[in-house]
Amino acid sequence: ERIGLSEAVFCAGKTPQQIAAILQSASERDAGLLLTRLDAEKFAALPGELKAATEWCPLSQTAFFGPVPPVSSAGTIAIVAAGTSDAPAAREAERTLRHAGVEASVIIDVGVAGLWRLMDRIEEIRRFPVVIAVAGMDAALASVLGGLYSGSLICVPTSVGYGAAEEGRTALNAMLASCAPGLVITNIDNGYGAACAALRMLGVMKLR
Amino acid sequence: ERIGLSEAVFCAGKTPQQIAAILQSASERDAGLLLTRLDAEKFAALPGELKAATEWCPLSQTAFFGPVPPVSSAGTIAIVAAGTSDAPAAREAERTLRHAGVEASVIIDVGVAGLWRLMDRIEEIRRFPVVIAVAGMDAALASVLGGLYSGSLICVPTSVGYGAAEEGRTALNAMLASCAPGLVITNIDNGYGAACAALRMLGVMKLR
Amino acid sequence: ERIGLSEAVFCAGKTPQQIAAILQSASERDAGLLLTRLDAEKFAALPGELKAATEWCPLSQTAFFGPVPPVSSAGTIAIVAAGTSDAPAAREAERTLRHAGVEASVIIDVGVAGLWRLMDRIEEIRRFPVVIAVAGMDAALASVLGGLYSGSLICVPTSVGYGAAEEGRTALNAMLASCAPGLVITNIDNGYGAACAALRMLGVMKLR
Amino acid sequence: ERIGLSEAVFCAGKTPQQIAAILQSASERDAGLLLTRLDAEKFAALPGELKAATEWCPLSQTAFFGPVPPVSSAGTIAIVAAGTSDAPAAREAERTLRHAGVEASVIIDVGVAGLWRLMDRIEEIRRFPVVIAVAGMDAALASVLGGLYSGSLICVPTSVGYGAAEEGRTALNAMLASCAPGLVITNIDNGYGAACAALRMLGVMKLR
Amino acid sequence: ERIGLSEAVFCAGKTPQQIAAILQSASERDAGLLLTRLDAEKFAALPGELKAATEWCPLSQTAFFGPVPPVSSAGTIAIVAAGTSDAPAAREAERTLRHAGVEASVIIDVGVAGLWRLMDRIEEIRRFPVVIAVAGMDAALASVLGGLYSGSLICVPTSVGYGAAEEGRTALNAMLASCAPGLVITNIDNGYGAACAALRMLGVMKLR
Amino acid sequence: ERIGLSEAVFCAGKTPQQIAAILQSASERDAGLLLTRLDAEKFAALPGELKAATEWCPLSQTAFFGPVPPVSSAGTIAIVAAGTSDAPAAREAERTLRHAGVEASVIIDVGVAGLWRLMDRIEEIRRFPVVIAVAGMDAALASVLGGLYSGSLICVPTSVGYGAAEEGRTALNAMLASCAPGLVITNIDNGYGAACAALRMLGVMKLR
Amino acid sequence: ERIGLSEAVFCAGKTPQQIAAILQSASERDAGLLLTRLDAEKFAALPGELKAATEWCPLSQTAFFGPVPPVSSAGTIAIVAAGTSDAPAAREAERTLRHAGVEASVIIDVGVAGLWRLMDRIEEIRRFPVVIAVAGMDAALASVLGGLYSGSLICVPTSVGYGAAEEGRTALNAMLASCAPGLVITNIDNGYGAACAALRMLGVMKLR
Amino acid sequence: ERIGLSEAVFCAGKTPQQIAAILQSASERDAGLLLTRLDAEKFAALPGELKAATEWCPLSQTAFFGPVPPVSSAGTIAIVAAGTSDAPAAREAERTLRHAGVEASVIIDVGVAGLWRLMDRIEEIRRFPVVIAVAGMDAALASVLGGLYSGSLICVPTSVGYGAAEEGRTALNAMLASCAPGLVITNIDNGYGAACAALRMLGVMKLR
Ligand SMILES: Nc1ncnc2c1ncn2[C@@H]1O[C@H](COP(=O)(O)O)[C@@H](O)[C@H]1O
Ligand SMILES: Nc1ncnc2c1ncn2[C@@H]1O[C@H](COP(=O)(O)O)[C@@H](O)[C@H]1O
Ligand SMILES: Nc1ncnc2c1ncn2[C@@H]1O[C@H](COP(=O)(O)O)[C@@H](O)[C@H]1O
Ligand SMILES: Nc1ncnc2c1ncn2[C@@H]1O[C@H](COP(=O)(O)O)[C@@H](O)[C@H]1O
Ligand SMILES: [Mg+2]
Ligand SMILES: [Mg+2]
Ligand SMILES: [Mg+2]
Ligand SMILES: [Mg+2]
Ligand SMILES: [Mg+2]
Ligand SMILES: [Mg+2]
Ligand SMILES: [Mg+2]
Ligand SMILES: [Mg+2]
Repeated sequence: ERIGLSEAVFCAGKTPQQIAAILQSASERDAGLLLTRLDAEKFAALPGELKAATEWCPLSQTAFFGPVPPVSSAGTIAIVAAGTSDAPAAREAERTLRHAGVEASVIIDVGVAGLWRLMDRIEEIRRFPVVIAVAGMDAALASVLGGLYSGSLICVPTSVGYGAAEEGRTALNAMLASCAPGLVITNIDNGYGAACAALRMLGVMKLR
Repeated sequence: ERIGLSEAVFCAGKTPQQIAAILQSASERDAGLLLTRLDAEKFAALPGELKAATEWCPLSQTAFFGPVPPVSSAGTIAIVAAGTSDAPAAREAERTLRHAGVEASVIIDVGVAGLWRLMDRIEEIRRFPVVIAVAGMDAALASVLGGLYSGSLICVPTSVGYGAAEEGRTALNAMLASCAPGLVITNIDNGYGAACAALRMLGVMKLR
Repeated sequence: ERIGLSEAVFCAGKTPQQIAAILQSASERDAGLLLTRLDAEKFAALPGELKAATEWCPLSQTAFFGPVPPVSSAGTIAIVAAGTSDAPAAREAERTLRHAGVEASVIIDVGVAGLWRLMDRIEEIRRFPVVIAVAGMDAALASVLGGLYSGSLICVPTSVGYGAAEEGRTALNAMLASCAPGLVITNIDNGYGAACAALRMLGVMKLR
Repeated sequence: ERIGLSEAVFCAGKTPQQIAAILQSASERDAGLLLTRLDAEKFAALPGELKAATEWCPLSQTAFFGPVPPVSSAGTIAIVAAGTSDAPAAREAERTLRHAGVEASVIIDVGVAGLWRLMDRIEEIRRFPVVIAVAGMDAALASVLGGLYSGSLICVPTSVGYGAAEEGRTALNAMLASCAPGLVITNIDNGYGAACAALRMLGVMKLR
Repeated sequence: ERIGLSEAVFCAGKTPQQIAAILQSASERDAGLLLTRLDAEKFAALPGELKAATEWCPLSQTAFFGPVPPVSSAGTIAIVAAGTSDAPAAREAERTLRHAGVEASVIIDVGVAGLWRLMDRIEEIRRFPVVIAVAGMDAALASVLGGLYSGSLICVPTSVGYGAAEEGRTALNAMLASCAPGLVITNIDNGYGAACAALRMLGVMKLR
Repeated sequence: ERIGLSEAVFCAGKTPQQIAAILQSASERDAGLLLTRLDAEKFAALPGELKAATEWCPLSQTAFFGPVPPVSSAGTIAIVAAGTSDAPAAREAERTLRHAGVEASVIIDVGVAGLWRLMDRIEEIRRFPVVIAVAGMDAALASVLGGLYSGSLICVPTSVGYGAAEEGRTALNAMLASCAPGLVITNIDNGYGAACAALRMLGVMKLR
Repeated sequence: ERIGLSEAVFCAGKTPQQIAAILQSASERDAGLLLTRLDAEKFAALPGELKAATEWCPLSQTAFFGPVPPVSSAGTIAIVAAGTSDAPAAREAERTLRHAGVEASVIIDVGVAGLWRLMDRIEEIRRFPVVIAVAGMDAALASVLGGLYSGSLICVPTSVGYGAAEEGRTALNAMLASCAPGLVITNIDNGYGAACAALRMLGVMKLR
Repeated sequence: ERIGLSEAVFCAGKTPQQIAAILQSASERDAGLLLTRLDAEKFAALPGELKAATEWCPLSQTAFFGPVPPVSSAGTIAIVAAGTSDAPAAREAERTLRHAGVEASVIIDVGVAGLWRLMDRIEEIRRFPVVIAVAGMDAALASVLGGLYSGSLICVPTSVGYGAAEEGRTALNAMLASCAPGLVITNIDNGYGAACAALRMLGVMKLR
């Protein structure tokens, strides 16, 4: 039987009460859940017994509720991020993959303004069939990687930056308009979506 | 040896003279070339002997110059387009794949305003590990497919439509913000890029 | 005599003092009022006796002050929402209709990423002459419904989503540019306006 | 049996050859067709016998091909346009309705900069259960009508104007943000869509 | 000697310390000052003796510090606002004029969704050589007034509204693209600027 | 009796046939007409006798049809333009004023990149109670004039420039956000509107 | 050996913990650090001993951690700001230069709405080979300076203003579209970047 | 005596007649002129004797009229362009510099999608104190160069690309938001401005 993404709850537009109800119902079905965009305040407001069954990550604002599948795949996906400010989206991707049983390798702080940092790691990166590239501001990392790496390259623009960074739209547009061929792009800060796309490629995505 | 995308020339910003020079040089190297965004006027302006060696497709504004590799892969990629107005981008993807030796299956006119058209073909679509979905205006096809199909789904927004379609930006944004998980997106009308992304997934992309 | 929307107060730009004055004056005229965009803080700040005469709904941030007309019409309007995050706008529509004596039927969580959820309810939906469709992000629900349902379809885009969802503009534009014919659209999150449009269709709108 | 909108062809993205093929096929089925966005050049390029069977309107760039149903409804829909520059969209709505057997009344040049022009006709307008309001630039006609008329008001923004008119986006946004309650809006210049919405209201829309 | 606008301080980007220093210095010169965009928190943070010399208006967030000139002109300027939500900008204009010795007449809640409200006051309005029209959302008041009133019409768009109101840009663009001739426009919510423009027309503006 | 702007025809969205019909009707009423946005092609397509009665200006694309009132006012309005590329909008204002009997003074090529050009003329400019300032690109002329001149200052942004000039939006926004107090603004390239505003100030605007 | 910008830390997207770790590591290497976008709350949250080694500037939200190089260059760079609201970006540039050993001269409040303020200082400004011009709203200072000063002119748009100032985009676009030749521009509020550009010009930039 | 940019004429908004008049006047003063944005049609329409004195470059649409100063400086400025489609802006910069007596070195087709092309030339590039970088689409070249080169880096975004390239706005924003410190930017396609900025740096700019 194929491994799949059992269920994910997008918490941004939900009250703690609504989230608690979803967790309660999952608990009754003995189902595991991935929660995304769960901020500290909402996590704190969950009833004690539900909170106890929830492993929450402050950096990515994701949580695992209930059973998490064992690791069933490794060495297939690398997550490459330009700077430490891009870490939240990178971690969201990493945790989404982990919740589907896939262990990803993460490489942070290889932005192209210091090109040697990327060049030092490029052979390592080339060993993965799928790479998730995470970058904000000018997103130049995506184009440079696109010219150096020939596997599947999923690009996640981030909202890092100010002014002309336009809350991630500049990174998004730069990735879409990249001079390197065959990049594919997700929504701004959407580490969850990039992970799901990688799972589709690995053939482990199971539709609900 | 791996099959690859030998070379592609983006003709939109080039004069017939510049294009002729590139063809001439490729001809001397006995190299095959894919040309994109080559309009009728520029094609007509090429010198006779170069034109004779060029197989031009008016719908997609692409051309094959010189040798084209034989088909080495089939049954792996389906191109699914919402309407006949989306055919140019779909054909650009099909021709880019063909120039890399990959024969794609093309399914047109399955937009969701007539949902049964898509439902009639969905089992056929599910047999392909990679699907390229091409749609303009509201791009609802991408979200519906994303919920019905669990393989790799590469989405190409098109500039079809007027007013609020905003020259493809609405289709682009709707695909990026889709409620279906794991879609990946290319630039507007970028059938070439979607094909390259599919080649990356098939492991047949060779970087220049 | 025709049933009408006696009076509505848009509270977003008003102070509790201003709102209290309006309620006081309505109370003296024995008039009933619908209040929209009344947040918890402003509701809490109203004087006790006015608050006691006000039935406030936290989800939709609407309130009924004073007399509410009895239900005089039912079975004519369905409100169909894509996800639970769209519930506030759906409830605003429902409450606006109720304040005009119209009882609507509400169907939530039938977004097209899980198409069977909509297909399970489609026969039920088809029985209503007027449907209000509420959806954010890609708003694909509107296009799919537009192809399956032939009555009046009033579409409310919501601000649900992030990044390319552009605070509801993507849903708005996708609905406006829909490939399904004859959809009509309201402002983002404007459940109130959709309800008023439905009342105009039912012939129960009375201009102030 | 209900009267319906048999079929409509959006010609903007199609070649004369593609349009001719569609007409030929309709001719074989003895079906009538509505064509929209058919410009003079494309109409001229159609084969003679097909052109002879096509009644083309230069102002609205619409055409009737083959049989047109007799008028089966009149006095139900008024089309009200602010200025003569708004006439193309108004006529597109009128012709779409006529092709479905509905005769609309058209009132042009009642923009609010000369308010008396509208006031002179308001009693006449009030007799129709459905009004289609067509306006560009500031689209103030929609708000003024919305306060004077209590039936169904379908608003069509037009691309008339320059600079801050932003190709119709200002009219579109002004209609969406109108201070009058219960207006519903279509895409810019979309007379066809407004007519289809009116047909949905009259209960004569038949989905293809 | 001409009456002028002695000095105005835009407080939005200033700390209470910086504002106190400016007041202190004006106090030493016995100069009167107009302060704009002074919020409650900043006003509260001013040293007691300066606060005592400051007449603050919470609605418009303006303040008069020190001497205010006597009224030297009245009956020349009317300020006409569409709704109560537009009152802050209207009051900012009124107070700026008052600080220059000009007493304006204010007419609120004459938005065009209830046209009779405006028609009831139009003769009164026509008596003023200069009118400042304040409106948000669709700003239709400006166009209707522009057709009914032939004096100088200064239009102030406000940020009232949500969604397609785009924080005042829709009102701004609608006023700029108005079908009524000869309207002039200021920045969004800029009651201060409209008052200064009126003072230029009255010939009482004195440049610093 | 007051002098007024008898009638103006905006030709941009009209066919030569429609324009000819309007001229014919004016001719029968012995009325004079101002035509704006009348391009060379449309002017050439007018019937000979109507063309003969039309004085057309290629720079501003305006025309006087029939009787033009004698000059009844001079020395009241100066039109100041930054560069020769701004001349079309400046001339449109000049001709609109002239058609209402007002002779304006025109000062061109005083852009602030060569500040002495403006300083050489500033005393002359200060003699006029009303100034129309016309500028594109950065529109810095408006702000500099706003600090040097204390009369009524009507600003017309032009679409001169490329890239970040954004077809006049940058000039428009810069004028609206000017640090000089009391500027008023018209739509992009709207010399006609600026002239009408000036006529309102002079008290010579007569509403149609 | 050349003087260089040892290291800069952009604190906007970092937690106090992350910043503390960076300071700790620099402290161990005896390295000096420049910190930008460090707000009061984050500064306060740093551990006591690190805070003690940090010289924080509230106006510019910059800090010097550890050793600061002595002044090695003066009289080469002037920073000219339009208003006091532009002071934060001006100070960020000044402090970045100081941290690289360069003492800049700062001239504030010379906006062009009061042109004499700039003219009074222009001879002084002309003595510097490099000028950094800081301005928000209409940014007219940049164009005027560009015409009066012939050295290197680095322009920093600021987010000062409201409405049409569009959070600095209007100033940015106006500087980019300036009618004065040879201006160069940085991101909005990017005093740091302007200082780095000046250091590149002085030949003192050392890449990390 | 310093070498300067005698005079430049921006032809985009001028008629051949206006341009001829400017050339005639320069000819009478024996002055040399640089013309920019002079397209083939306008050049062809110039009177014969003026055309004979004009050296026109079709690629950059620039022309030298009359005397051109001898080369007085070389080896100081490199122009580096990402692709052949960026050549027009690169050539505009080159020709502007040449007209001021400065010979630039030009390096084309070093876009980062093929990183080795740039790395092969980087030592050569590092020898120049000033570099003008020209790139469209994602403009990643600017960021990569910014990390490898420590001299003055003037960046020119180009309008090359489609869809998300947004006519050069994506390249512009990516350069402004670059993760590399101290880049300075000009308007889209503004090779002329970049050259003028370089002349300011070389101290050879002479203000008109
Ligand atoms: N961070 C995220 N970004 C985008 N989509 C998400 C995210 N997290 C969850 N989702 C999607 O949202 C769905 C859940 O939505 P809901 O039913 O409203 O909780 C999931 O099944 C995913 O498809
Ligand atoms: N239609 C297209 N859309 C996007 N990129 C393209 C397209 N066609 C070619 N390219 C890319 O552009 C490169 C060639 O650019 P050039 O050297 O300017 O001809 C190719 O290697 C492709 O990566
Ligand atoms: N949520 C809402 N969205 C849009 N318009 C509203 C809303 N609530 C009330 N309105 C309209 O605003 C009017 C009241 O505005 P006001 O007089 O400012 O309270 C009502 O008559 C409605 O037409
Ligand atoms: N509310 C306002 N909106 C626009 N400009 C204003 C406002 N209040 C004051 N100003 C302008 O800002 C100037 C003062 O700016 P500042 O020197 O920064 O206090 C005044 O002279 C006015 O020209
Ligand atoms: Mg870093
Ligand atoms: Mg179709
Ligand atoms: Mg859900
Ligand atoms: Mg008219
Ligand atoms: Mg009201
Ligand atoms: Mg000039
Ligand atoms: Mg100041
Ligand atoms: Mg190339």
